[in-house]
Amino acid sequence: MDFRGAHILSVNQFQRDDVELVFQVADRMEPCAQRLRVTKVLDGAILGNMFFEPSTRTRVSFGCAFNLLGGHVRETTDVESSSITKGESLYDTARVISGYSDVIVMRHPTPGSVSEFAEASRVPVINGGDGTNEHPSQALLDLYTIKKELQANGLDVDGMRIALVGDLKHGRTVHSLSQLLKTYQNIHLTFISPHELRMPAQIISDLRAAGHNVTETDDMECGLRENDTVYLTRLQEERFDSKLEADIYRGRFRLNQAIYTRHCKPNTVIMHPLPRDSRAEANELDADLNQHPNLAIFRQADNGLRIRMALFALILDVTEKIEESTNEITWYTGGSVRQ
Amino acid sequence: MDFRGAHILSVNQFQRDDVELVFQVADRMEPCAQRLRVTKVLDGAILGNMFFEPSTRTRVSFGCAFNLLGGHVRETTDVESSSITKGESLYDTARVISGYSDVIVMRHPTPGSVSEFAEASRVPVINGGDGTNEHPSQALLDLYTIKKELQANGLDVDGMRIALVGDLKHGRTVHSLSQLLKTYQNIHLTFISPHELRMPAQIISDLRAAGHNVTETDDMECGLRENDTVYLTRLQEERFDSKLEADIYRGRFRLNQAIYTRHCKPNTVIMHPLPRDSRAEANELDADLNQHPNLAIFRQADNGLRIRMALFALILDVTEKIEESTNEITWYTGGSVRQ
Amino acid sequence: MDFRGAHILSVNQFQRDDVELVFQVADRMEPCAQRLRVTKVLDGAILGNMFFEPSTRTRVSFGCAFNLLGGHVRETTDVESSSITKGESLYDTARVISGYSDVIVMRHPTPGSVSEFAEASRVPVINGGDGTNEHPSQALLDLYTIKKELQANGLDVDGMRIALVGDLKHGRTVHSLSQLLKTYQNIHLTFISPHELRMPAQIISDLRAAGHNVTETDDMECGLRENDTVYLTRLQEERFDSKLEADIYRGRFRLNQAIYTRHCKPNTVIMHPLPRDSRAEANELDADLNQHPNLAIFRQADNGLRIRMALFALILDVTEKIEESTNEITWYTGGSVRQ
Repeated sequence: MDFRGAHILSVNQFQRDDVELVFQVADRMEPCAQRLRVTKVLDGAILGNMFFEPSTRTRVSFGCAFNLLGGHVRETTDVESSSITKGESLYDTARVISGYSDVIVMRHPTPGSVSEFAEASRVPVINGGDGTNEHPSQALLDLYTIKKELQANGLDVDGMRIALVGDLKHGRTVHSLSQLLKTYQNIHLTFISPHELRMPAQIISDLRAAGHNVTETDDMECGLRENDTVYLTRLQEERFDSKLEADIYRGRFRLNQAIYTRHCKPNTVIMHPLPRDSRAEANELDADLNQHPNLAIFRQADNGLRIRMALFALILDVTEKIEESTNEITWYTGGSVRQ
Repeated sequence: MDFRGAHILSVNQFQRDDVELVFQVADRMEPCAQRLRVTKVLDGAILGNMFFEPSTRTRVSFGCAFNLLGGHVRETTDVESSSITKGESLYDTARVISGYSDVIVMRHPTPGSVSEFAEASRVPVINGGDGTNEHPSQALLDLYTIKKELQANGLDVDGMRIALVGDLKHGRTVHSLSQLLKTYQNIHLTFISPHELRMPAQIISDLRAAGHNVTETDDMECGLRENDTVYLTRLQEERFDSKLEADIYRGRFRLNQAIYTRHCKPNTVIMHPLPRDSRAEANELDADLNQHPNLAIFRQADNGLRIRMALFALILDVTEKIEESTNEITWYTGGSVRQ
Repeated sequence: MDFRGAHILSVNQFQRDDVELVFQVADRMEPCAQRLRVTKVLDGAILGNMFFEPSTRTRVSFGCAFNLLGGHVRETTDVESSSITKGESLYDTARVISGYSDVIVMRHPTPGSVSEFAEASRVPVINGGDGTNEHPSQALLDLYTIKKELQANGLDVDGMRIALVGDLKHGRTVHSLSQLLKTYQNIHLTFISPHELRMPAQIISDLRAAGHNVTETDDMECGLRENDTVYLTRLQEERFDSKLEADIYRGRFRLNQAIYTRHCKPNTVIMHPLPRDSRAEANELDADLNQHPNLAIFRQADNGLRIRMALFALILDVTEKIEESTNEITWYTGGSVRQ
């Protein structure tokens, strides 16, 4: 695909080459993301960071990624402020808001809304999450993290074994990641979930049609074995009809130090899209693994910055200008604090 | 008037020369607003974008306008966060907040509050809307749009015929626009509204005293005839005592392709301050006109950026430095996407 | 202490030398804070302004201080958006958010939360207020203001006489200021409050142990006499069990022109951390003193900018680069509007 001026709406728009290009540019963002260098390659550009659903981390991650490239960020954080509540169509909102900035990131609770918005927009739009549907930058940063962690173990994405654990029915991150993996080869996926919260059948059949090996189970201990990566998720309580219904499944699948040691291969990479629910009744990923060298969850969050910087640079076509535009940082950054 | 360091609180403070000066500066903002050039003429300046009432488009429009001139924007979006809820006077808020920025834009639900704030402020204040009272930058961008659209039709503001349609009692945009038109000559205004939602009598008598021709009617089809511009508005539901009372008037006056073709002169400019209510029961301006060449509503929104850039540049006295401070844009802007 | 890369969590971490260093750097910020000069010494740096409790003035003050040094500001203003509501630990939030910015300011309703956050953070954290506990930048700006006001009267902090008035039990500003005063010498403190809202006993015994003279009284008129500074506070209504309970104390201790003239020494400096409650039933500091030359409350707010600029500059180690990095302001700043 041609990234220049493109909307980023779904992982399905990427071929493998596209994914690898994003990763290459993300690698080149490392010095700026880690505060060794500073760039102003987008000095004067404006991001419209339009979040019509609560979010702190994704919103701030996109905003900081744009600031790290030197650009301004304008944003909205509350759906109540929106003209949408006064009966405005997404078409109108898009036509107007897209006149104010050079690129837009949009999160909205309604599946498909971001694509509808993008159709009317006069500037490129990145989907920052549309309900249960898609969250493509999350899938990219997840896969980027898996790739880097596996490489450190002498492995690669092709041929890897990965377990996805938890609420696979509602989690848009596991949906998007699974679809992105289709562009790779010969992957063994184990989906561990309660029967009622299984991965949608369409995604499974798509994966199999693409030549991958898929196993479904509700037996956590069996499912964990022989994987290179295990990807835990939070119960998407807000997608259930009631808290009571969610309670049935809460805390059913957990990983902690003891379980990891007993059932996982050494060096199994531990992932989670965050936030993880650390309350006692849930606690899907225990804090006793916080110092574990294979716990990749915070590197995963850090990688989000690079992936988002890469997307902005590709869409706004400044990748050729990155290195030449950087300078040394002149303030104290703690040397190793970022690592 | 001398714009340097001035508050912009009401359209009544403008003479015709002042309005024309704002429009001239707005014209000069076009290359930067359309992303052909980038300026840093306000690099280092800070806008305090103080919105004590929900708003997305006006808030973002002012913020982006300031970013487009190179400045920083700090803002507040919720009245609950405000010290006002702890019994603080507007005097105190103004004295403190005005120490933090170089210029302030303020929206507040109480008529007159922005003027009261400005009296205590140590920096220039722009009224971004104070209840049903005033919204001067909206009136300026409306008139700027009318002027440009009419000029394309070989007409001018002097001597034009314009119909204002809808809730003329509560709409602050139609109040401010009508008052601004007083500074021009020989205008024929037709106010189309339900009897109960008529334009305030004072505004009508002021217009007549200034030599303009005013007609009031509740007959949409008659009222539309022979105009050069028709300006639709949304029912200001939030100003009614109840939704039930608002429902009486909802959807009474609508424009769509069929009505336009039957009752409007060819090339009649279609305006709306936005947001328009696109729900079936309201739908004052139908989407079937979305591709109509005389639908000016999105150009109107775009012009808002230029007018607000012009106000900032005039107040902070940097109009002489605009052209010399611009540079080529170095990122991809889609060529024609902004037009 | 070494400010480079340090967290600023409590006034108790400062020795007198540290306080004086902050004040010296704050003095050097004056040309930029007063808009005579502009600096870009932190151009490219990012502040994460994380407010998990409503605030306008403190949040905007920190944000503008960072902008005044040339940096970007990303922020969150609502606790609802936070992953904390999804069961995320402060540890996780800190690990993630601290990867996005160069320094963090955090406000949170829970005492001790900011310290817990800082432990997991990879970048320096400034406490912007953690419940009833601490608000160190407020204490620094209060003392900085007292020092400057007294110097104008030929006095100094050492040996001064100060009265703190009002809700001394719940006010974190009076707690932090009292603790900061311990590092100075021979101060006479008079605590004027209802018996039930007295200053915590530990703070009083700490002050006495440090050699200061402390008097407690509920007699306002007696207490006001012979002081160099009187520091009024607002009833912290939100810390009471009910509005009814707060009503018992509301409006008990007030200062106005008549009381000042009758009971205070000439040139007694009048302070208040703001917001002051100007409603008739409270009105702890009457508006009839607004033009009084010794009313320091707005200079106090202005000084907040300088103190916060100084903290950022010290933590990020750019104090040596401030003067060399400044330039003339090129926009209109009103000459004397800032004074």
